[in-house]
Amino acid sequence: MEGSISVADPHPHPFAGDPVFDLHVGGKTAIVSTVPLTGRDDLSLAYTPGVARVCEAIAENPDLTRHYTWVPNTVAIVTDGTAVLGLGDIGPAAAMPVMEGKAVLFKHFGGVDAIPICLATTDVEEIIETVVRLAPSFGGVNLEDISAPRCFEIEARLKDQLDIPVFHDDQHGTAVVVLAALQNALQLTDRDADGTRVVISGAGAAGVAVARILLEAGVRDLAVLDRQGVLNSQRHDLTPVKRALAVDTADQFGRSGSLADVMAGADVYIGVSGGTVAEEIVASMADDAIIFGLANPNPEVHPDLAHRHARVVATGRSDFPNQINNVLAFPGIFRGAFDVHASAITEGMKVAAAQALAGLVGDDLHEDFIIPSPFDDRVGPAVSAAVSDAATRDGVARS
Amino acid sequence: MEGSISVADPHPHPFAGDPVFDLHVGGKTAIVSTVPLTGRDDLSLAYTPGVARVCEAIAENPDLTRHYTWVPNTVAIVTDGTAVLGLGDIGPAAAMPVMEGKAVLFKHFGGVDAIPICLATTDVEEIIETVVRLAPSFGGVNLEDISAPRCFEIEARLKDQLDIPVFHDDQHGTAVVVLAALQNALQLTDRDADGTRVVISGAGAAGVAVARILLEAGVRDLAVLDRQGVLNSQRHDLTPVKRALAVDTADQFGRSGSLADVMAGADVYIGVSGGTVAEEIVASMADDAIIFGLANPNPEVHPDLAHRHARVVATGRSDFPNQINNVLAFPGIFRGAFDVHASAITEGMKVAAAQALAGLVGDDLHEDFIIPSPFDDRVGPAVSAAVSDAATRDGVARS
Repeated sequence: MEGSISVADPHPHPFAGDPVFDLHVGGKTAIVSTVPLTGRDDLSLAYTPGVARVCEAIAENPDLTRHYTWVPNTVAIVTDGTAVLGLGDIGPAAAMPVMEGKAVLFKHFGGVDAIPICLATTDVEEIIETVVRLAPSFGGVNLEDISAPRCFEIEARLKDQLDIPVFHDDQHGTAVVVLAALQNALQLTDRDADGTRVVISGAGAAGVAVARILLEAGVRDLAVLDRQGVLNSQRHDLTPVKRALAVDTADQFGRSGSLADVMAGADVYIGVSGGTVAEEIVASMADDAIIFGLANPNPEVHPDLAHRHARVVATGRSDFPNQINNVLAFPGIFRGAFDVHASAITEGMKVAAAQALAGLVGDDLHEDFIIPSPFDDRVGPAVSAAVSDAATRDGVARS
Repeated sequence: MEGSISVADPHPHPFAGDPVFDLHVGGKTAIVSTVPLTGRDDLSLAYTPGVARVCEAIAENPDLTRHYTWVPNTVAIVTDGTAVLGLGDIGPAAAMPVMEGKAVLFKHFGGVDAIPICLATTDVEEIIETVVRLAPSFGGVNLEDISAPRCFEIEARLKDQLDIPVFHDDQHGTAVVVLAALQNALQLTDRDADGTRVVISGAGAAGVAVARILLEAGVRDLAVLDRQGVLNSQRHDLTPVKRALAVDTADQFGRSGSLADVMAGADVYIGVSGGTVAEEIVASMADDAIIFGLANPNPEVHPDLAHRHARVVATGRSDFPNQINNVLAFPGIFRGAFDVHASAITEGMKVAAAQALAGLVGDDLHEDFIIPSPFDDRVGPAVSAAVSDAATRDGVARS
């Protein structure tokens, strides 16, 4: 922290003594200067008159922003506060601590400068046009905690309109880490994607994206459920996104009905919905079952119960083995995209990130070790390298 | 710079070897975390699950953002790139180096976290609605390098709509420092504001704001000129802003005509227009004249020429005495506003900032020392304390 003036907040805070609130006093992020400023000479290089020459050079060749500004290393973390953690629609102001936390993780695990942008609108058109107007300031956009189904349209249209990476972490970050963990779990239980029966409980941002990446990875027998049951084309209450997903999943094998109906004999359960699965339903799964209960803080299937009926168990929690945590993915994905000035984050880049993550487990693969720890120093470099390579293969790298 | 991954740009840059461009590689600003992140325990405080309690507390009482987020210490530096330095309308991408430089100064001299926001629109309505949507993320808005007369409407309407400080630095930062320097120059030449004849060349953002603050400070005989001559009510080509200013300035003393007409016998010349004033015009001023030629890098009256006809000379340049530089004002003004959670920056806060600046010169007052150096460590604390006090007096302090 530089600067000649103290910024310590002199005002007492109402939850003093609570470690979480004490930590949050003054927020968790700050801006720093990366250049010296000790006298007039420094000022004339970093500011006027020197800076004018840099501006003129960029005006002549906008591509020079990649060299002479922080833009190519910055990501806007954009939310409207409508689906924050498990808390729901708490609004933009209350979403800020999560966005600042995300910025801390972006920097720590990916060296990415992330700026929290909490918007005072929940209108799809307004969110899109606002982000488009902000785009010259950022090298990428990370959409965060925007409720489904609005998040799908916002992401799709921003990807169309912008030539920088746009990534909805609640969808794709989760999907990447789930795919990595599932690939290792399938290997451990001698399954291949093609012949595995998967049930995904939850058809919001995470559920849809997990389903899509599993299809991409070769899973064919997939049933996705919302609160009304399995998504299939017999239903007339589906949004366009759910309808398209139904055609590619349950329709293929004629799956329908309730969770109990599709769990009988299923190999894999992936919970991204909250709620609780009754033990008799868990018990009806195939031998050597795989259970990922990802709701936080209460997994859909508690690990103690899951272990009575399954061979591989993962959660979103740090106090059990096999933590499925987005932080394994998003910092390295943006790092890898930024390193090659990628114009987008492709499906190939996401799958490459998952494979890199899965590969770090290697010979240590074990029921209680299907995914590396976020604090494994190899994670960021492995993911970013794989993503950069995939960007080049997919033709979106610009250097 | 923290983070486990190097962000050094491996790409050679086209102006390598040029000190200004070398300094700008990778930009001049970065985000850092202000909290520890060494393991799972830290993660559970700064991010999930701990952060959820902070979000819930803010959702219940939005005023808690002032304690538990970085928002109350952040300012958005918002530009559309239409009036950047003396370069004009170079667009948002090319404006970024100036905005990053400003962020460096905000932090160094005021301890304020400033985020450059370069917008891909020049439409007044779109700029206003975009900033309003961004407002939950920021404790203040610093408008920057937006061309006149659009800047006046944008600032006025944002001040109406937002309950955080909105400040157009090209107007008010300049005005504060000019007022400070002029107060000392008047004292040095035994003048009072009331009886002093002032000419302001330039009726853009800076010219209008300088005129307004001088009227506030007691100057009555004031003529403001644009390219067509003195603003007065006989003219039919004036914008609403210029028309209102004409009524309060030249109309009062029946001033009209060209620069040569009003400079004859004038006590003070303030140039914020660019261009050059002919020596015979400079020579026609009153004895003990005061000349501020603020265009960069070429003052309207070069100091060598000015000194032949004037007693006190100031410029915007660092290589001559008496540098009139906005950096003397904006960091301390926002620091002072933020320290008391001010809901606005009032005229009283600006005048207080100018008086604090002028007061730092004290007994050292001299023709070549009418304004302190930006690197005088007393500047930030003096300005911010005066601004906080004025905010309290003006009823806009919220703590």
